Amino acid sequence: MYYSEIALAFLDLELPPSSVQLCSCLDPAQAQPQGSTAWLSGQLLALRPRCSDAPRLPVRRQRSLLASGAAAHCRVRTDSMPVLVRNAHKFTFYTQFVCVGGSPNRMKAFAQFMHKELGLEGSGEDVADICAGTDRYAMYRTGPVLSISHGMGIPSISIMLHELIKLLHHAKCRDVTIIRIGTSGGLGIKAGSVVITDTAVDASFQPRFEQVVLGDVVVRSTDLDRELAEELLACSKEVPNFPTLIGHTMCTYDFYEGQGRLDGALCSFSSEKKLEYLKRAHKAGVRNIEMESTAFAAMCRLCGLRAAVVCVALLDRLEGDQIRAPREVLREYQQRPQRLIAAFIRRRLGLCPPPATEGTTDLHGL
Amino acid sequence: MYYSEIALAFLDLELPPSSVQLCSCLDPAQAQPQGSTAWLSGQLLALRPRCSDAPRLPVRRQRSLLASGAAAHCRVRTDSMPVLVRNAHKFTFYTQFVCVGGSPNRMKAFAQFMHKELGLEGSGEDVADICAGTDRYAMYRTGPVLSISHGMGIPSISIMLHELIKLLHHAKCRDVTIIRIGTSGGLGIKAGSVVITDTAVDASFQPRFEQVVLGDVVVRSTDLDRELAEELLACSKEVPNFPTLIGHTMCTYDFYEGQGRLDGALCSFSSEKKLEYLKRAHKAGVRNIEMESTAFAAMCRLCGLRAAVVCVALLDRLEGDQIRAPREVLREYQQRPQRLIAAFIRRRLGLCPPPATEGTTDLHGL
Repeated sequence: MYYSEIALAFLDLELPPSSVQLCSCLDPAQAQPQGSTAWLSGQLLALRPRCSDAPRLPVRRQRSLLASGAAAHCRVRTDSMPVLVRNAHKFTFYTQFVCVGGSPNRMKAFAQFMHKELGLEGSGEDVADICAGTDRYAMYRTGPVLSISHGMGIPSISIMLHELIKLLHHAKCRDVTIIRIGTSGGLGIKAGSVVITDTAVDASFQPRFEQVVLGDVVVRSTDLDRELAEELLACSKEVPNFPTLIGHTMCTYDFYEGQGRLDGALCSFSSEKKLEYLKRAHKAGVRNIEMESTAFAAMCRLCGLRAAVVCVALLDRLEGDQIRAPREVLREYQQRPQRLIAAFIRRRLGLCPPPATEGTTDLHGL
Repeated sequence: MYYSEIALAFLDLELPPSSVQLCSCLDPAQAQPQGSTAWLSGQLLALRPRCSDAPRLPVRRQRSLLASGAAAHCRVRTDSMPVLVRNAHKFTFYTQFVCVGGSPNRMKAFAQFMHKELGLEGSGEDVADICAGTDRYAMYRTGPVLSISHGMGIPSISIMLHELIKLLHHAKCRDVTIIRIGTSGGLGIKAGSVVITDTAVDASFQPRFEQVVLGDVVVRSTDLDRELAEELLACSKEVPNFPTLIGHTMCTYDFYEGQGRLDGALCSFSSEKKLEYLKRAHKAGVRNIEMESTAFAAMCRLCGLRAAVVCVALLDRLEGDQIRAPREVLREYQQRPQRLIAAFIRRRLGLCPPPATEGTTDLHGL
């Protein structure tokens, strides 16, 4: 199933006639409440276009789509547009893995790291930002791996994902695996541990993402691909020296009050109340806290993308709010998800395990 | 009242003994429900320390505060730390205006523009990023004006505000005016119109911000300073050639589905439903839509900061979802809030109106 072909069905564009039939599936008389997850899933299953039926936008329209509001924030460089549009078949075979993370510098460093890990020609130091036309996001391509920044928080990653999924559609990419790599606060785990998320939960520890659509709350599932999580855990055995575990990840809308921190500019609760909340979270299976996983999981699931979240815990929040490890230690912590993902990608591509390498992440991600 | 001294009271730090009394105000036996806005306001009013009572952190502790978790994302350059810490009194008299906006490039351009508008020495081209140690935010100082980027969405601006307010506290800044300048989607207004927000509303058009604290929803007011809004509207008469109005601003958590766009990767509603929603928003007084105003208004109000939101509408959403104006037209639109704020700051500082100048904003903010 082309998840991306289906996404096209919902684009309100001047589509060629063969695609009108896809849009007509948006029928308010359907049995399921319109906008419900069940309704949407029903729509998606009903479409299932075959490759030859797939609507193809004329090149001029594709450029218009990407250059204007439909990708208002990614702003792919116009000189790179031919790569996506005219060489789409190459891009298809190329892009198999998409890695996303908050910091532009960290994702550039990851792209350079993957360049070495994949044994590509050249040093990789001059990897180009495909989204150089904007400072909202950065995007780098290293062989079959796209490395993209998403900023901080649910709204920021949400915008990027909408635009990424549309770009992948136009490049006719299939069977893409997308992984968020990041930093997080741990709960009851050693600083430096890497958590592979099985389910993203909200601040009430529920496995759901509440998306507001036209003023109404639509609840979406935040389950991630269990097999992918297990495969990543298995890969972690090849990467020595840090503990890796599978657990729930709590996603919040705020770094300070929303995560029970006492050291924000505002704090309306005691340290006892804070600890009580964090312990309840731990009891509910939460092992780390960050700020994008629920929206990421929900959207990838809805679009049929195989997805994972892999974050390193910079501290144990049950011990305090502030990161106290020295800079060089934090630098090495940040490399851990990158090293794990590199091992995973190498295994998927059938490459031999590399000699022990240092990552090139710097601390700009902090 | 030192809003910033009060914020210090809630910091869970090793404070000198004189400040222990401030922290003891966090008394769970208080009449108001703990965590309610009324309770917090009561706490804030009860404190009101005098200047001589104000707890002063030792220099070493201040460095620790700013360099570690308490400003984990701003990461002020350590060589600029002495500016804040040892020269705090200068910084106090300096910083009177803080302007925030989503894009780092746009805020740098604004700093350079203000350099010219204020008639400062030099070209202003080499304005330095005070937060150069991180790629999360950018911060520039031009005389009495701080220009800071905040990324996209409520979580991103929320983190920045927490850390900014703490920095302003340590610099002993008083009577600071903070203004968010940005882009937005208009509703029933001409593209290029500038909206000065009187009240920020959520996706249900309610003047509230729902902050999740320890898993519970705390509702906060989103009223902005009415006098400041009127003052800005009066200043707009000095800046010819674009319409300016006061109106409600709707703040959403998502750019696509959350704002009724049909051109995201996902869309579960018809264009009729979309238009019906946007028309209801317009009827409720909403004149533009963006993604930070409710959190910005709520937090500034709670911390006693005089605040405004000034955004240009890049399009009229009642006419469509995509921005169709040519690049040079959009560039000029983006300059409009900057020109208005420059006129406001000049008037506040008692400077004569400048000769007609071009702004230096580029479109990287898009």
